[in-house]
Amino acid sequence: MDPSEVEIPPLKDLTIDNITDNVHLINSRCPDPRLKYVLELLVAHVHDFARETRLSSQEWMAGLQFLTSVGQISSDVRQEFILLSDVLGLSLLVDSIDHPKPPSSTEGTVLGPFHTHDAALESNGAEISGDPDGEPCLVLCTVKDGEGRPIPGVKIDVWETDSKGFYDVQYSNRVSPDGRAVLKSDENGQFWFKAIVPVPYPIPHDGPVGKLLKLLKRHPYRPSHMHFMFEKPGFDHLITSLFPRGDPYEGSDAVFGVKESLVIDLLTVDKELRDEYGIEEGSKLIRHDFVLVTESDTSKLRNERAMSAMRAQGKRMKMYNGLPVPDVD
Amino acid sequence: MDPSEVEIPPLKDLTIDNITDNVHLINSRCPDPRLKYVLELLVAHVHDFARETRLSSQEWMAGLQFLTSVGQISSDVRQEFILLSDVLGLSLLVDSIDHPKPPSSTEGTVLGPFHTHDAALESNGAEISGDPDGEPCLVLCTVKDGEGRPIPGVKIDVWETDSKGFYDVQYSNRVSPDGRAVLKSDENGQFWFKAIVPVPYPIPHDGPVGKLLKLLKRHPYRPSHMHFMFEKPGFDHLITSLFPRGDPYEGSDAVFGVKESLVIDLLTVDKELRDEYGIEEGSKLIRHDFVLVTESDTSKLRNERAMSAMRAQGKRMKMYNGLPVPDVD
Repeated sequence: MDPSEVEIPPLKDLTIDNITDNVHLINSRCPDPRLKYVLELLVAHVHDFARETRLSSQEWMAGLQFLTSVGQISSDVRQEFILLSDVLGLSLLVDSIDHPKPPSSTEGTVLGPFHTHDAALESNGAEISGDPDGEPCLVLCTVKDGEGRPIPGVKIDVWETDSKGFYDVQYSNRVSPDGRAVLKSDENGQFWFKAIVPVPYPIPHDGPVGKLLKLLKRHPYRPSHMHFMFEKPGFDHLITSLFPRGDPYEGSDAVFGVKESLVIDLLTVDKELRDEYGIEEGSKLIRHDFVLVTESDTSKLRNERAMSAMRAQGKRMKMYNGLPVPDVD
Repeated sequence: MDPSEVEIPPLKDLTIDNITDNVHLINSRCPDPRLKYVLELLVAHVHDFARETRLSSQEWMAGLQFLTSVGQISSDVRQEFILLSDVLGLSLLVDSIDHPKPPSSTEGTVLGPFHTHDAALESNGAEISGDPDGEPCLVLCTVKDGEGRPIPGVKIDVWETDSKGFYDVQYSNRVSPDGRAVLKSDENGQFWFKAIVPVPYPIPHDGPVGKLLKLLKRHPYRPSHMHFMFEKPGFDHLITSLFPRGDPYEGSDAVFGVKESLVIDLLTVDKELRDEYGIEEGSKLIRHDFVLVTESDTSKLRNERAMSAMRAQGKRMKMYNGLPVPDVD
């Protein structure tokens, strides 16, 4: 770009007090109003953080080196920035903002870094875990709308660790997906499969995020849980988990994912279920009825909450592609 | 760690409104008061950023992927996180906070990502550039204290690009340092060397930071400059640059590094200098007198400004290893 096209006052003699406004000024030529707004708030917060902490050059460099190592340990099967976002509570927060739920619906929680896109589509009744040491667990679920009507044809991703607390992708010799499957709800909104009882496990803590937790005297454990993700056009994408009650880490999840409504009782397979589903009597059982929200209800709720948050900030905003931007007209 | 050692209330049902306090709570066991304070402000700002923008899951993921790519393109000879910090004005801000200057002293500016530690120690008069296409430039400097007394024995790092605008480390076939040297000031505080006239150049913009600048409709150029770094025990570390006046990018430096006091006139070598320094008459000449601040004056100024910034925030703070932490006694 020709420098003569820069139609802003010369940027010279920038100081602690005027740098932020000048960065806003040079970024203000961004043609996308949403990117412009997000960047403006990002710059303001990053600068305020440095000013309020009186960040030293040494701390700044340590921070940049930390972020570099977070990027460098990430790979196709490990996303350390998601982990970092998880342990700082940001993932839970963003999910709460983007997927507001009316009281009747199933609450969402963190996605985590272990979802993959290569799980096989299975029929109801499939065994999703190949781990011979896992404790068998029958999972019987329904998926309904807010009025209690079954939703057929929902694509449901499920994934869990093996009995040692590792996801398949954490094994370097992984050849095919294990402990995960994609299912479809039937005409009655039902889906069911055979899995293993979830176990608590530490998030990967041999990298920079693990070092940070150690400095903060935090443990890296998640209470035992099974992941579920629901997708059907017309319904809001639901990412959630179920947590069997009584796990020692239930009250101190390293990634802040536990919600009381997602804590479930682990039941037991009786004779009748044994005969119906072909799983040993006395095996563990998870039963749950999931409730999805329509995309239009979610969008309405999201917009209402966004506008009310903007009013609380005293900002005059409008919606742009479903997200707030300054209303400068 | 045993979960029973977590002496905080159970973390469940975290929402947009209570997640931040709960993250602070679990991080509050950090034994280092400075890390605890910095993390608390970081979490507060990151969460407020998400709440104020109503950050969507898609934007969150795009942000994490962006940060991952910034980490992954970084290497021993490329630090993309420093570049990112530079183009967001954070580097200039941190330098201003950490190295406050009394009016009489030389101002600092951004380090940039191209300083190395392998430059050779040279004597006064050395030629630092091996580029035959560069326009020769004699550089005659002194380094003094605030009372005008020469400071001998200062270690001075100097570095600049070649005539094409590239630093030596940007060439994959680099075998030894070029365009850089380490000098020592003599008993009169003088140091001098032969270099080439600096040229404007783009910061590396083939990576994620370049893409961001493009989205923001910003150019990636820096006005021509020569880097200087001064170190001597007892004096505050000075990182600065000199900018020959009249560069087309002088008012729109991509990394906000220009300060009026660092803009210099490019002079010309006359007969007398030719005879004294052995460089062709009519060659370009940079003359500058640098002024260092003592460590104790810097530390005093830094503390005063930190405490006054804390008072302005209404916070009761104390200094801990020269940096503010909450005064909870």
